[in-house]
Parts: sequence; C-alpha cells; structure tokens
Amino acid sequence: MSSSAPWKQLLLNSINSNSHLKHSTYFQLATVGSNGRPSNRTVVFRGFQDGTDKIQINTDSRSCKIEDLKHCPFAEVCWYFTETWEQFRIHGRVDLIDASNSDPDKLEQREAAWFAGSVRSRLQYLGPTPGLPSLDEQPSHDSLDSSAGPVDVFCLLLLDPEQVDYLNLKSNERLAFTTARSVNGENFWTQNKVNP
Amino acid sequence: MSSSAPWKQLLLNSINSNSHLKHSTYFQLATVGSNGRPSNRTVVFRGFQDGTDKIQINTDSRSCKIEDLKHCPFAEVCWYFTETWEQFRIHGRVDLIDASNSDPDKLEQREAAWFAGSVRSRLQYLGPTPGLPSLDEQPSHDSLDSSAGPVDVFCLLLLDPEQVDYLNLKSNERLAFTTARSVNGENFWTQNKVNP
Repeated sequence: MSSSAPWKQLLLNSINSNSHLKHSTYFQLATVGSNGRPSNRTVVFRGFQDGTDKIQINTDSRSCKIEDLKHCPFAEVCWYFTETWEQFRIHGRVDLIDASNSDPDKLEQREAAWFAGSVRSRLQYLGPTPGLPSLDEQPSHDSLDSSAGPVDVFCLLLLDPEQVDYLNLKSNERLAFTTARSVNGENFWTQNKVNP
Repeated sequence: MSSSAPWKQLLLNSINSNSHLKHSTYFQLATVGSNGRPSNRTVVFRGFQDGTDKIQINTDSRSCKIEDLKHCPFAEVCWYFTETWEQFRIHGRVDLIDASNSDPDKLEQREAAWFAGSVRSRLQYLGPTPGLPSLDEQPSHDSLDSSAGPVDVFCLLLLDPEQVDYLNLKSNERLAFTTARSVNGENFWTQNKVNP
C-alpha cells in the first residue's frame, strides 16, 4: 500500500525550490472543447486536497473551461519550474465542485477553498462574465464581507492524477509515473525512467 | 488589407520585454490525442515564419504530439510572460513539415529551421525515441557535422493562428482577436475588449 504517490515528493521539492518566484504556483491547464479542439490557459495551484494527491484549482463557473470539462472531464497540467528547469505533466480526471453539488463534504471543501483565498482574489468572482465583451463602465466591486461564504459562480476543481511525466532539463532525466489498479482494487503507482 | 495581425506587435513587445529571461521563449502547447484527451507540454518558440504570422516549433517526429496532430491538427499555445504578467492564448491549425513532405518550399523551410538551431540542440534528434523506456547505456552523440542537413526525425511545426486571447494581469485588461474571411477571400482580424 502506497499512501503517497512517488511523484508527489518530487513536485513538493520543486514547489519549495521555486517558491521565491511568484509565478512558481502558476501552471497551464489543457482541456478539450465540445468542438474537439484543445484549450489551454494559466491557472493557480491551490494546494493538494487534504490527505490526497488531488490538485486544487479555483475557477469561475462561467469560464469556458467548465463547459470543456463537462464535455470531457480529463485535463493535463503542464507545470514548468523556471528556476530548477523541471517540468511536470500531470494528466487526470477533474471533479467540478460548484454551488449545485449535492455532496455536503464536497460543498465543505468548496467553502474551505473560498476562505483559503485572499479577499482580493474573491472579488474577481463578483465581476462580469469572463470572456464576454467588456462594457466601458463596469461597476467596481472593491469591497466584500470577508466572512461571507462562496458566491454562486465560485467553483473548485479537483484534478485526480492518473499519469505524471517528469522532465529535468538540467540532468536531462525523464520519469514516467503511471497509476494502475491492483487485484484488491487499490490504486498504485509504477515509475519508469524514459528517454527525454 | 492588413499585412500584419493586430496581436503580433503586442506579442513582439512581450517577447522583447522578457528577453532577458531564458524561459521567455518557452510556452505550453496543448493538443488532443486519438483517445480524445488533452496533452500539454513545454516547447520553444522558434520565431515566426518569414513574412507571416505563423509560429515555428521544432520537434521530433517520434514524439507523441505528432500522433496527436495527425489525429486533430488544432493546437492551443499558452504563453505566459513572467516579467510582464501577460498571457497569450493562441489557437490555430498546425502544419507538420517532416522529411516526407512533397513540397520543395516546405522542405527548404524545414532545412532553414534545422540550421537556425544550435549544433547542440540538433544532437537531441540523434537520441533514442522520446518517451520509451531508457536503457542504462545509451550511446552518446556528442558530435555532429555542423554542415549536415536535417535528420529524418526532425520535424518543423507551423502554427497558423485563428484566435488569440491576450490577458494583462497588471492592468487586468483582456483582448480577444478573431480571424474571419472577407468577401474577397482574404483573412482579416477583429479585436474586442472582453471581461478578464
């Protein structure tokens, strides 16, 4: 039984070694649209879900990635660390936790994610629909009750990794991590050195 | 007639403002695999094709992205500039130019792309198949005749942008650029300010 995925410590080391850089928590998330074409955008790493290997991302339920994920629930993170020249490609299924979720545990996680963000970061969810034409005069939302719970459009994404590809451009080493299900139904990880 | 796309100068400015950072020419390229799932990896910007808005990328024809692009020729670049806090999402169709191409002009472009790279960068194409299990003892290829033309597995990708989404995280401004075809069959670009 492996309680932790073998790539997780590698990733935590990279996060730590690059933590002096603001952009070190930014990665690119690729999804597939209902037209079958890829989309790609920068999002912010919001930590792992407690006690799991699942990656947390906050988003606006009005953004296009939600429509993409409802069509195809798989996504691939590409996370390049500019200080240590390391890349993690993390492929997995994404669970959408929005206001309409019926699971009380998941709604609690969503609320925790909301309060984990700064009040300033919460303000963006009060703005007009992302990607729609911008009107010249937008009402400004520069105040928000810091004790108020998540607004309706706030959505927590949980990416559950199935495959991780690690590349170190300094050592030119590449590792492929793959998950599989054992006979007793538990997931376990295998690790292989592959050509860069 | 617009000889240049309106987003191109914005992108050239960003490239210039961030050029002191080695990673400023790196971006993430998303594709869709034959299983319908997204893939995402870091690649290097190799400039625009002469006289066009097409983005050049060099790759190994044995890499998975080639199979992806043969299945679905559309890709989306996500290019985040860490110094100026700007993001470009560039969506378009990708033309694969490999050794088997029958167009002499394209083969000439491929050859030019090969020689534009350093001798060191050309060496990687002599290595074993990317992504396959690594054998302990790989033959090293630390010499290459600098006048030798492209090896068989060298492939030039040309991404022809159809849509560009620009986001500036400092000013919180976002612009959507879309191409359309005019009545006389020429492509032209429209530009709209959209909500971030």
